[in-house]
Parts: sequence; C-alpha cells; structure tokens
Amino acid sequence: MKILILGGDGYLGWPTAMHLSAHGHDVAVVDNYLRRRMSLEQDVGPLFPVPNLHERAKLWREKSGNDVRVFVGDMNDWDFVASTFTEFTPEVIVHYAEQPSAPYSMLNRETATLTLHNNLGVTANTIFAVREFAPDAHIVKLGTMGEYGTPNIDIEEGWIDLEHKGRKDRFLFPRQAGSLYHTTKIQDTDLLWFYVRVWGLRVTDLMQGPVYGLRTYENDGEEALLPFFNYDEIFGTVVNRFIVQAVAGYPLTVYGKGGQTRGYLNIKDTLNCIRLSIENPADRGELRVFNQFTETFSVNELAERVQQCGSRNGIEVKIEALENPRKELEEHYYNPAHTGLLELGLEPHFLTDDVLDDMLQTVLRYKGAIRNDVIFRGVKWN
Amino acid sequence: MKILILGGDGYLGWPTAMHLSAHGHDVAVVDNYLRRRMSLEQDVGPLFPVPNLHERAKLWREKSGNDVRVFVGDMNDWDFVASTFTEFTPEVIVHYAEQPSAPYSMLNRETATLTLHNNLGVTANTIFAVREFAPDAHIVKLGTMGEYGTPNIDIEEGWIDLEHKGRKDRFLFPRQAGSLYHTTKIQDTDLLWFYVRVWGLRVTDLMQGPVYGLRTYENDGEEALLPFFNYDEIFGTVVNRFIVQAVAGYPLTVYGKGGQTRGYLNIKDTLNCIRLSIENPADRGELRVFNQFTETFSVNELAERVQQCGSRNGIEVKIEALENPRKELEEHYYNPAHTGLLELGLEPHFLTDDVLDDMLQTVLRYKGAIRNDVIFRGVKWN
Repeated sequence: MKILILGGDGYLGWPTAMHLSAHGHDVAVVDNYLRRRMSLEQDVGPLFPVPNLHERAKLWREKSGNDVRVFVGDMNDWDFVASTFTEFTPEVIVHYAEQPSAPYSMLNRETATLTLHNNLGVTANTIFAVREFAPDAHIVKLGTMGEYGTPNIDIEEGWIDLEHKGRKDRFLFPRQAGSLYHTTKIQDTDLLWFYVRVWGLRVTDLMQGPVYGLRTYENDGEEALLPFFNYDEIFGTVVNRFIVQAVAGYPLTVYGKGGQTRGYLNIKDTLNCIRLSIENPADRGELRVFNQFTETFSVNELAERVQQCGSRNGIEVKIEALENPRKELEEHYYNPAHTGLLELGLEPHFLTDDVLDDMLQTVLRYKGAIRNDVIFRGVKWN
Repeated sequence: MKILILGGDGYLGWPTAMHLSAHGHDVAVVDNYLRRRMSLEQDVGPLFPVPNLHERAKLWREKSGNDVRVFVGDMNDWDFVASTFTEFTPEVIVHYAEQPSAPYSMLNRETATLTLHNNLGVTANTIFAVREFAPDAHIVKLGTMGEYGTPNIDIEEGWIDLEHKGRKDRFLFPRQAGSLYHTTKIQDTDLLWFYVRVWGLRVTDLMQGPVYGLRTYENDGEEALLPFFNYDEIFGTVVNRFIVQAVAGYPLTVYGKGGQTRGYLNIKDTLNCIRLSIENPADRGELRVFNQFTETFSVNELAERVQQCGSRNGIEVKIEALENPRKELEEHYYNPAHTGLLELGLEPHFLTDDVLDDMLQTVLRYKGAIRNDVIFRGVKWN
C-alpha cells in the first residue's frame, strides 16, 4: 500500500518507515524537523547524532534496496500539504506529526501555543487533505493513553456504553488529560470523530502508552538507523530516561510517591501495531480505537527493574524520590482494556530482563556523550 | 465589578455590555469586528446598519451617563491581549469572541481553519491572560447546548456520575457536536477544564441554546442600540430568521422532517443569565456548567408559531420543507436539564405570542431592507 508517514523523523516515525518499507509497502515520510528544532532550542539533544531524512533514506536504500520518498515541510502549511498529497497520493496516512512532549507543552505560553496550533492544525489539514485528495484513505492517528487520565473506573477501549435513567447510548470513553499536550490529543479526537461522522472518514486512533527501546527488526542495532533518542526530561520517555540515568550514575528521578501507573510497550510492538492497523483497515465512517500498550507498571516498579538491570551489569543504580513538578495522582486505580490489537494478531515483546540488558548495553556505547545537566530540569505544571 | 466582554460587537456582546453597565458594573468591550468582516465577505449583512463600538459607546454614554471602554483588536494577537489586560485588568471576563456560525464553519477549508484557530486561539489566550494578569478573575465562557448533540439519554447539566463495573467516578457529560463550530466549543471545554484543574481557574461555562429577539431592557427598541441582527442562513438564529422570512413573504425554511428539537431563550434571559453568573461567581478551581435555555421546541413547532403570529398580524406565512443540507437527526429524544440558572434566580421570558408579535412588528419597520437572496443558500455539510 502507499503509505504517507507524517512526522517521519521522530522517535517512532523513522522506525515505522523502515518497518513498513521492509514489509513491501510504498512509503513516503513528511517532517519539518520540529523535534530537532525544539531539542536545539531547549538544548536537550539526542544521545547520538541522527542523520537527516534524506541521509536515512539513502542508507535504507543501500541496506534494503527500497526507496522511501522524503518530503520536508510543514503540514500546517496548506500549499505544502496540497503539493505533497498531489505528488504522493496515499492509501494510508500514519499521523505522528505532533509536538509530543507533555513538559514542553507546560513550559510557557509560547510552547503551549505552538503545541495547540501545531497539533490541531496538522490534524485538521490531514483531514482536509484526505477529503480533497484521497477520500478513501485510512488515517492511522497516534493518540495516547494519557487522554483517558486516571479515572476511578475501568478504562475501556475508546468507547463506553452508558445506561442512564433507563435509557442507553454509546459514547467516546470520557477523556481528561494531565497536560496540555495530552489535551490537544483529546481535541484531535474531537475533530476526527466529528469528520468521521459527517464525511465518512476511515480512522484508527491508537491510544498509545509510553514506548521504550532502540532496537527494531530493521535497524538491528546499527547506529545510523537507530531512532532519534532523547533522554532528557522534556522529550525522553521514562524507561529510556531511566536506562540512561543508570548508565550515567544519575539517581533515577521518581516523581513524588511513584505510584503513577501507565501502560507501556516495546518499540517493536509499536511497529507491529501500526502495521496490523494498516493491514486490517477501519471501515468508512468508522472511528476505530485501540489501546496500544502491552503491560502496565508503576514508576516505582520501573525504577526497581532498572536498578536490578544495573546490578546484573555491574552498575550501582540509586533511586531518588523528587518533589513532583507535575500535577497528577501519585496513587490511583488503573485498569485499562487492551484486547483489540491482540485480536488483530499482536504478539507482545514484554519488558524482560534481556530487553532491559540489551538497552543498557546499547546505551553504554554512548556513556561519554551523556549530559547530566539535561536529565532533570523540573518543568513545573503550576 | 470590572468586566471585560470579549466579542462585544456581536449579537449578544453589545446588549450584554449595556445591561451590565446599567447594573452598575465597570464594563469594557473588545472586538476585532470579525462578524462584520465575515458578513461582508459572505455578502449577508444585518437587517439594519449598526453603529461601530466607539459610536455605540458614545450613544450609551449620552443615554445612561455610563462609560464603556472600547478596545478594537484581535484576541489571537498576544501583544494586543497583554496591553488590553494591562490597561483594564478585569475581575470578570465574558468570552463571546468566537466564530459563532455552524454553516460558516462548514463552508470550506478556509472558513473551517479560521473557526478552529480563532476559537481555540482566543480561548487559550484568555486563559494565559488570566493566569498572567488577573489570576483571580472569573471567566464566563459561552459554550453551546450543541456540544451535547442529541444523545439518546437525558442531558445533564455539564457533568455525569458514572457507575461502571462496580466503580464510580464523575465526568464531563459526553459531548458530540453537529458542526465544526460546535466541535471547537467542545475543544474549548477541554482546554478550560484542563487549566481549571492545573491552575485553579474560576470558570463558568454557559451551554447556551439558540437566542432570539431584538428588544432588551436597555435598548427598549431604540434603533441605534439594537443588536447586530443577521437574518441569513449563515449567521441568523432560527427564530429570528423565521420572523424575517414571514415579513418578507419567504416560505419558512424547515430542514428535512423538522423534528430537530433544541432549547431556546429570549435575548433578555441571556443578559440575566450572564449577570447572575457574574454576581454569583464560580469558585477557584471550579468549572461550573449551566445549561442556558428556558424551553424546548422542534423546528416544526417554531414554524407553526411564526405562521400563527403572521395570521394574527395579517400576513400569510407558508412553510416549506427543504432537503436537509446538514447532517443531523431529524427526529430524536431530547430531555436536557436546566435548573442551575433558575436556582440562581433566573425568571424566564418565554416565547409568548406577545414576544413574537413584538419581534414581527419591529422587523416590519425594515421590510424594505430584507434581501430575499441571502435567506437560504443551502450550505451543505457533505
């Protein structure tokens, strides 16, 4: 299938491009290098330098024999959107093109405004582009488990059947998020759900938990094809950050009581979830929602697992409880459903000791490059 | 109290300014004349010319002795926002400053994009301005009953207590709207609810139904102080449109089966609802939601009422069922709660024969100005 990946330069975008290309799909990537510019602006670069998209496409062609087309530009700019969709009319759009950091969205008014306008503008333009240029295309949108927050009831997979005063209806599962970034994802859902109903769009919304890992089927640990890997508080995800902190001898930064529980997944599972969603598309007029994670952990459990991983590898790892800069429940009920992707055939890669050890060994190669000053900044929600 | 009215030039903005000023409040209005520009752009002007804000403030000063300060500028422009909030630091912000038309938001990509960026940008800047310049100020936000759509269960007042698999929690009542405009109001709610929780804002969200009428306590039918009154399909509300169509001898435009039921209110009740909300503010950290309407009607009932009003005044009124250009349920369950404002002391002005006759008589003065070509255009949702 012809697949256009929006946000193809990010942590997950490029690995997804290679994975879908390796599976015989005709892949193009779009990016305006926003993540690179934000990393530069905040002085929190990745653990190792990452070739740009044209360079990565060249490396991938040499390795696989497959072409991945590259479009560099801003999906908020309609002229660019129109020319891209005219040159490469996709059957599937994978939409990663968002400002993806909760702390970045809470830094100040400018970063909040950028997050709001970027994320909603790109989602709106994607909808309008599908309507105008590719009306049957399937939009595979990355949502986040964070849209649900931490309610005191079981989290269902996108939808909930309500019985109220003797009458019944089905609604989107209630969403109430913990950052502006996560709130823009709720607003994306509002937009997509509206246009699904009115225009009969075909949409899969993947409510993804935090992803960890570096190694994918396609990069096999080869440096030049590794993902864009942030380990700082702003752009790094928690397992990745803890592994780097362990290697750097920096105490693991647990916020508050550490009982915050989320659903996690291996980067390989992200790739499989995306591919399974593409190869089993949503119907016209369907907003299909999957909760995309494979197992849940509290922050304390993750810290302990990384500490044990350190021990196995001869590294002493300390854990430090910090005053929580965020506003969130530190102890809460959490029981989210996640059967949809398993039913499509997902075979999870769990967070085993081997997986942790492999991550640690890979990161150890870059120990000298780790900057302790970017690990924790304490971006406050209040 | 010091009250800043955003969108002070619109159908409800200026009447609200006069009403609060008459009740002893210190009022300022902000507008960028967006409604006037959109009306010009779409060639659907108001029924009678309306003086600009500086002229209206002068007329009001002559009539009442009270000053209303005028700020002309765009709430999406932070420099303007900052200078306005510095010059006039409000205790209350009434936020009407949105692109308010469902059909306009569905015209084309450009009008959709304007609606999205205007409505969310202004709401975000209002939140940031309160945070920076007036942290204790009470935001009175105009939402819409349209956020709820037409679910098959009773609509509660903003919130719903859920019991699910033996556990309980309280959530925003599910929202699923029928146009992009209404969807941006849902997204406003997402933003406000997030920042209420994180920053402890003080917010009242008024879920308003369609408003009708021209006469308020303060204008008393005086032409120069009447509201900005659109009667076209794009910017006119349904009762106002039907009255004008009756006067023009234009068959009343009922979409589809005409069973679409909504909650309506008199413009005088809007003014009282706003004032009661201001004089009984929400608490810090509270998102208070009121369903702001006084009685429900189907479109068919309204058409019949206006037809009878015509008969009483010697005008023969025809009703014409048109193919519905919108995508909506034409027959549905509708039972929304609306007790909050009554408990604050609202005394409703219902849609009586006298009220309809007075509207008809007022509109008759402008019979010669009615342009039949703007009444129905058939803006299609699909």
